[in-house]
Amino acid sequence: MRLVTWLGPGGAERPGAVVDVDGTDRVVDLAPVAGSVVEVLADPALTAVARARAEAPAAGLPALDDVELAPPVRPGTILCLGYNYAGHVAASAAPDDVPEYPNVFVKTPNTLAGPRDDVALPAVSQHTDYEGEIALVIGRRARNVPLAEAAGYIAGYTLLNDVSSRDWQDRSSQWELGKCFDGFAPLGPWVTTADAVPDPQDLLVEVVRDGVVTVSQSTETTVFPMAFVVHYVSQVLTLEPGDVISTGTPQKLPEALAAHRPLAHGDTVTVRVAGLGELTTRFVQEAAQR
Amino acid sequence: MRLVTWLGPGGAERPGAVVDVDGTDRVVDLAPVAGSVVEVLADPALTAVARARAEAPAAGLPALDDVELAPPVRPGTILCLGYNYAGHVAASAAPDDVPEYPNVFVKTPNTLAGPRDDVALPAVSQHTDYEGEIALVIGRRARNVPLAEAAGYIAGYTLLNDVSSRDWQDRSSQWELGKCFDGFAPLGPWVTTADAVPDPQDLLVEVVRDGVVTVSQSTETTVFPMAFVVHYVSQVLTLEPGDVISTGTPQKLPEALAAHRPLAHGDTVTVRVAGLGELTTRFVQEAAQR
Repeated sequence: MRLVTWLGPGGAERPGAVVDVDGTDRVVDLAPVAGSVVEVLADPALTAVARARAEAPAAGLPALDDVELAPPVRPGTILCLGYNYAGHVAASAAPDDVPEYPNVFVKTPNTLAGPRDDVALPAVSQHTDYEGEIALVIGRRARNVPLAEAAGYIAGYTLLNDVSSRDWQDRSSQWELGKCFDGFAPLGPWVTTADAVPDPQDLLVEVVRDGVVTVSQSTETTVFPMAFVVHYVSQVLTLEPGDVISTGTPQKLPEALAAHRPLAHGDTVTVRVAGLGELTTRFVQEAAQR
Repeated sequence: MRLVTWLGPGGAERPGAVVDVDGTDRVVDLAPVAGSVVEVLADPALTAVARARAEAPAAGLPALDDVELAPPVRPGTILCLGYNYAGHVAASAAPDDVPEYPNVFVKTPNTLAGPRDDVALPAVSQHTDYEGEIALVIGRRARNVPLAEAAGYIAGYTLLNDVSSRDWQDRSSQWELGKCFDGFAPLGPWVTTADAVPDPQDLLVEVVRDGVVTVSQSTETTVFPMAFVVHYVSQVLTLEPGDVISTGTPQKLPEALAAHRPLAHGDTVTVRVAGLGELTTRFVQEAAQR
């Protein structure tokens, strides 16, 4: 099941389920049965969705392409992982270095952007970059979760572009300011519920920049699998329903690294994972500030 | 003016003003005129407070000591600074190294604790430590604020204990997990409005641990003054009313460093700044987890 947050009449955010009707993605309004996607996810049996789908009119559902989309969830906390794929290591590390612990940072609430929003390239940054990632969505409150139970706290998966200002990130030991410009976390387009993902450690993460594949690596090669990350992080934070953990980016392909240049006005970046959809973001240059 | 968030009948959070009545701090309920402390702060003239105080009964105000206190504000974003006082530098740096840029990290929403809450020492950490800091509170939305105007976006000041798990902080390059255990950001006891602080760069920050002064250093010695921090950070994030920036801790005094040991069950730590009050936190050991 694919769950979106879409804007109904008047612009209010409503949960919706995406259904394929004769080859076209259409939206079943879930507002009659749930207040938000997070509320839908709280019921692993998805009974509310089943009921809404059964009661939805057979014709007249709006096409997904025709509705406005918000971020599928609005997390209180967005955690991100650094260096979580084999071969993606700090510049100071040996290529086969494997970190002993997950390296976690935070994206603040101002970074959240919808799946069709443009993202501003900050005037004060000389090098804005993209990172294509799978983000897991927490379904129920998680604190000190044993490893064997951790997968059960993951309600679904979505895509996140961990947009990063490299020059600001490199100004100090902590990366936060480089990661936290407004809009630097486009999320979506939908949450795919966990029951529809047979093996989250067997997904090919791809990034396409202006038509060229620049990242292509399987979640088989992550250092810390998703369930472990939930287990580990839940020893620290109480994770709340709707919180998001983005599981890191693979290294760019050698050709892409060699040809790399900062994002520029009009560039588009697509993060795509079979089964999770595509998240396409267009970047627009911010005007210089006073 | 000192503003608290206190719990009224039924446990609902209410804004309040602290007034001295014959030597006793008492609470004027501001709920009739404002929904929250952030709403009070949005009016720099504090007309709502003046009206409520004028209308408050002369007798019968509850004593501050007798009411329950919540964190004075509930920030969407809590930013913190590292190494922002002269003499407090990374272990790898020379003692007189001065950072070129503010080093900013985030405390997630689960870290927020009230000014009288106990804080749990996590069972999984072997070394929990304290850091006494002045936290500034943003009064109105701030984005790309020029330096000359930045002070005007600071609505007030409060105290924050940047509780830190040193062993978790040292596990990876990013400090977040060491900083973000539940309850690791006690805040309060109140917000002192900016008009009552003649010079925020002339405040003595002191920390008392179990009766011994372990930190004593003036904000005169910060690397980045508070107004600069607001100016700088607002180039990245849109700061919202009620957001908090904690301005870093001074280094512990030499004797305190020499005698340092991790916090233990029953320890109390008081952060105190003349004019901003005292924030006292008791630490209690968390039981081992399964």
